[in-house]
Amino acid sequence: MEPDFARVEDEALRILETLCRQPSVSAEARALDETAEVVDEFLSDAGFETQRLRGEGGPAAVYGEREGRSEYTLLLYNHYDVQPVDPLDLWQSPPFEPTIRDGKLFGRGTADNKGELAVRLAVIRALREQDDELPCRVRWIIEGEEEVLSPHFDEIVRVNADLLRADACLWEGAPARLTDGRPSVGLGFKGALSVRLEVRVMDSDSHSALAAVAPSASWRLIHALASLRARDGHVLIPGFYDGVQSPTRAEEEAIAEQGDAMEEQARATHGIRASLDNVMGAAYRERISFAPTANVAGIHGGYDGPGMKTVLVAAARAWVDFRLVPDQHPERILELLRRHLEREGFGDVEVSVLGTCEAAGTPIEHPFVRRVIRVAEEASGEPAAVVPRIGGSLPIIASLERHLGVPGLSAPDNPFSFGSLVHAPNEHIHLDDLRAAIRFAYALFHDLGTAQREEA
Amino acid sequence: MEPDFARVEDEALRILETLCRQPSVSAEARALDETAEVVDEFLSDAGFETQRLRGEGGPAAVYGEREGRSEYTLLLYNHYDVQPVDPLDLWQSPPFEPTIRDGKLFGRGTADNKGELAVRLAVIRALREQDDELPCRVRWIIEGEEEVLSPHFDEIVRVNADLLRADACLWEGAPARLTDGRPSVGLGFKGALSVRLEVRVMDSDSHSALAAVAPSASWRLIHALASLRARDGHVLIPGFYDGVQSPTRAEEEAIAEQGDAMEEQARATHGIRASLDNVMGAAYRERISFAPTANVAGIHGGYDGPGMKTVLVAAARAWVDFRLVPDQHPERILELLRRHLEREGFGDVEVSVLGTCEAAGTPIEHPFVRRVIRVAEEASGEPAAVVPRIGGSLPIIASLERHLGVPGLSAPDNPFSFGSLVHAPNEHIHLDDLRAAIRFAYALFHDLGTAQREEA
Repeated sequence: MEPDFARVEDEALRILETLCRQPSVSAEARALDETAEVVDEFLSDAGFETQRLRGEGGPAAVYGEREGRSEYTLLLYNHYDVQPVDPLDLWQSPPFEPTIRDGKLFGRGTADNKGELAVRLAVIRALREQDDELPCRVRWIIEGEEEVLSPHFDEIVRVNADLLRADACLWEGAPARLTDGRPSVGLGFKGALSVRLEVRVMDSDSHSALAAVAPSASWRLIHALASLRARDGHVLIPGFYDGVQSPTRAEEEAIAEQGDAMEEQARATHGIRASLDNVMGAAYRERISFAPTANVAGIHGGYDGPGMKTVLVAAARAWVDFRLVPDQHPERILELLRRHLEREGFGDVEVSVLGTCEAAGTPIEHPFVRRVIRVAEEASGEPAAVVPRIGGSLPIIASLERHLGVPGLSAPDNPFSFGSLVHAPNEHIHLDDLRAAIRFAYALFHDLGTAQREEA
Repeated sequence: MEPDFARVEDEALRILETLCRQPSVSAEARALDETAEVVDEFLSDAGFETQRLRGEGGPAAVYGEREGRSEYTLLLYNHYDVQPVDPLDLWQSPPFEPTIRDGKLFGRGTADNKGELAVRLAVIRALREQDDELPCRVRWIIEGEEEVLSPHFDEIVRVNADLLRADACLWEGAPARLTDGRPSVGLGFKGALSVRLEVRVMDSDSHSALAAVAPSASWRLIHALASLRARDGHVLIPGFYDGVQSPTRAEEEAIAEQGDAMEEQARATHGIRASLDNVMGAAYRERISFAPTANVAGIHGGYDGPGMKTVLVAAARAWVDFRLVPDQHPERILELLRRHLEREGFGDVEVSVLGTCEAAGTPIEHPFVRRVIRVAEEASGEPAAVVPRIGGSLPIIASLERHLGVPGLSAPDNPFSFGSLVHAPNEHIHLDDLRAAIRFAYALFHDLGTAQREEA
């Protein structure tokens, strides 16, 4: 017998609103302990035996375990931290005051990733009301540093491997329902290398009357950055594409069958004037999964105010993130970046590493992948959109693979969409998507009651 | 009989401190009326008949006139506005609280240009104490928009030409005393074109997971800017150098004889690691006077905070100023810039004009130039360093030439130096330079008592 889904939805919404009131910005080390405490209480209330797991100097990850009817063990991964909220003036309602407007819930973290945490909690509470036992054993880790590339997660997994071992893992999830109604399933994430580039050419700003003879930090940084990437997006660092793999036949088929909903929604949501290099359709989707990138997430130097100031800039800085695919390793890319800058005469540009992450994923043929796709299609009545590799990065996957060998994926139990303004002002979820995520999660737990340990 | 110069110095310092307490930042339209009032009172006290001259919608310029013994008329130009003060945290004492430390007076405007205003006022008051009549007629205009390229000055001069007509003009001055003891004389200024470049590629920032397919405003702006200038400073806009004139023999000689003090002081003051293109000596000085430039005074887009944020940037902006030489006209350079961006595929980069100014100056052979050089050398006992064209811009000169046909120059009555951190935090003057400026100004006024009208 199915639960009263409307009630489960109300419950998820209530949990989500509580979580979103916590301003848990990991880049600013803000409210992390308080949020871990709130998460811990929710897990305890849902019947989990909880504890805090910590890496040296990092905030607590919340861990919980609950036995189930079968010996099959499912590991859940979520994070309670969120991205910074700037520019604050673009938010239509305060980022940490969750607000419903037009069938949507607005607030930092609603989409990434507190919404999914609330869905999973509400479904587990509903399952428990139906039957005191869960269909299978559930282990759950909810960390607080995902948005800064999880610097302590690998240590936590290594030290606590016995607590975390499982037959399969649900990572942070994929959209429960695309605009064409399809559930989406993501099988991997890109790797990442995030760096800050800084250049200083003199001790203090000077008058631009000296521009004919004195160096400029803004020009140095602009020229250094321009040497990294062509206008069409191709990365110009020698050796950058070494070892990059082409899609397999099965991956190409999955990309061909995804449909255009994700592209259309991204375009509409952000009001994108034209794609990079005017790429569209299957080529667009193939780049999302298989093209490594170099992105300037921020560049700042010199005057930024009304009117003008004729100043020669002493120092400038940029934030650059590279998204990587197998077999591009961040340490190797960093070495190539440094060597390239040196060779191009930009040895004065200082490179500081902010975070690294290996690309990782699960093969499309894996039985757990087939199971999740089947359940998603049954629960929604629509063909799943299977994404071989999501364009973002989830550093935790490489750690789960390395220390636990546990296969995983992003299931459609995440109520966000490509219109959710993830990492941007006015982040939100559609309440309809909360419904779809809950129905899928409920169906998957039930289905896992029949799973065999050796299947994984 | 000479006046008591120590008393004149004290007087100049007192005036300067009063002026520097006014936060007259023209870019922010701050305290301009109040400062004009203070300046007007000082002029009236010194025996000038004053009035306010205004362009449509602009702040008041203060005008004053005083008769003299001879019919020879000297026009003085100054400005009471100053540059913005950011970054505020780098100031060792508050920018609008003039503070003496180590024989220097610190404060925004001390060097540019309130110090010279105070010198001229104190010298005129001293002359008046000696003899009720000045040696020649003095007309004086002190405007409030020099730091934003004097948008209303041309209108003011055109409408009030009869008030401003003169035999010669002392513009904003040159350093009274270089570190090698020489007085400096500047015969012209570069022109300028200041623009803001803005690019928007989508309505809102998005997650850098889309970096493989979505456009980036930071990359667009970096590539557009990189297309404008080579790493060695050479401007890459086709046609940019058309009409640029080579120095004459007399100008080359003046440059050869300037000495290295200005270069050495700029290098030491700003802690410059290496000159642009490693230029030095006479070649350095020739570029200051004769090389047009493109400078990025500010570039801003995307994240600028602790840690990192993996965001794809929707909009970015840059402030660019071009310094121009005869016969580069700002309107033509703007047209070439726009055409270049269009041709390079950057038609989406919006160009807004913030200000323009024509290059202008007085020939090195002019009798007024010879007179000022002679007086400066006599007053200081050192050979003058004659700069055919100063690297900065003074938009008012072209207006004075156009509407009045008055020749002018920058005389060594300005107590600033190339170490004064003009336009930067901790702007200051040396009190010793105040003394040198006062002695020169006093000597020049006396000398002008013997000048003939037809000489000019």
